[in-house]
Amino acid sequence: MQKASGNKISMAVIRRLPKYHRYLRELLAKDINRISSKELSEIIGFTASQIRQDFNNFGGFGQQGYGYNVEDLYTEISKILGVDGSYNSVLIGAGHLGQALAKYEGFSDYGFNLVGIFDIDTEIIGTKIQSVEVMPMDNMVEFVSENDVDIAYMCVNASSAQEITDMLVGAGVRAIWNFAPVDLDVPEHVSVENVHLIDHLMTLSYFLDSE
Amino acid sequence: MQKASGNKISMAVIRRLPKYHRYLRELLAKDINRISSKELSEIIGFTASQIRQDFNNFGGFGQQGYGYNVEDLYTEISKILGVDGSYNSVLIGAGHLGQALAKYEGFSDYGFNLVGIFDIDTEIIGTKIQSVEVMPMDNMVEFVSENDVDIAYMCVNASSAQEITDMLVGAGVRAIWNFAPVDLDVPEHVSVENVHLIDHLMTLSYFLDSE
Repeated sequence: MQKASGNKISMAVIRRLPKYHRYLRELLAKDINRISSKELSEIIGFTASQIRQDFNNFGGFGQQGYGYNVEDLYTEISKILGVDGSYNSVLIGAGHLGQALAKYEGFSDYGFNLVGIFDIDTEIIGTKIQSVEVMPMDNMVEFVSENDVDIAYMCVNASSAQEITDMLVGAGVRAIWNFAPVDLDVPEHVSVENVHLIDHLMTLSYFLDSE
Repeated sequence: MQKASGNKISMAVIRRLPKYHRYLRELLAKDINRISSKELSEIIGFTASQIRQDFNNFGGFGQQGYGYNVEDLYTEISKILGVDGSYNSVLIGAGHLGQALAKYEGFSDYGFNLVGIFDIDTEIIGTKIQSVEVMPMDNMVEFVSENDVDIAYMCVNASSAQEITDMLVGAGVRAIWNFAPVDLDVPEHVSVENVHLIDHLMTLSYFLDSE
């Protein structure tokens, strides 16, 4: 099976893959080794037809009358997602949210390793968060260039996010996990995942208010 | 203009509204009072036709040849999103991430008020985070029922999230902002917004890996 297989995978499919990965991981933890698209549908909430269609994007995994081998499927989706690899990440902005991300357990289980933290606050520069040193912003570009950093967690305020993004992209970062409440302009080869906290709350209040 | 106007607004449109709200707020801060769908398109990144179509869902706001009045538009979208109101929220789980949310500045600007924090850790029960008391989990249901709580920020681990959700829903919570890495079952009248952190990283690694 090929990952790209010449076809462009839609963003909607890509966004469902981590969910498949999570459920398959749970099945494996329960020693369930075989599952039909119908059974998977019941636990994951997508239709069986949707599931078959999604997997067909990558060449299909199932066998008529047998269903899916959970471990094979998990391994293949891990490969497709690239979580069989290892990535160096840096945290920019060690405020409350940034520190929470630095202390979050589990990212490294999936190959996401935090190798550096940068901040402007001289009170915390030189300290360590989970054994990772907090360094001054002035060192960021050099560190990122020299340490093969793939991903930046952006936990800075809205007003400085774009300028820092430009510096990071110039230094070779190709993926930005953006918690700043602003949309970032990046070149096409750079991916951005936004977590706009206020937007989430507004979506909830929309439904609260509409009752 | 009516909010519901008898039509069902698609989730895709609802999800774009907070972004419109954010950009209009920025325009207002810059004293820009009038904007065409074309100009709005250039700054927000949706097509002008998409913008007009989105606003038509709510009865339209624009005037041919004039464009949109930014303040009116902002006010109307605030109403539609329900952020002209005020909501009581509770935080469940005052670990690193929960504390970061409790300390996040800005939620209250949009009417989201944190009124209670619950945790099982006896070391922090009785302390305050940003003037909000950390209470034992045993008090949660009574507090939620008595304090007209609308929204719960779920920052507990995957294994306890569903059980706590059931208790919260039973006590009257109608919106859950879920940071636990698990999908929650809720009745139809309850909304859930998920922030699955690992899923975000996996989406980034998909693109890193596919280069």
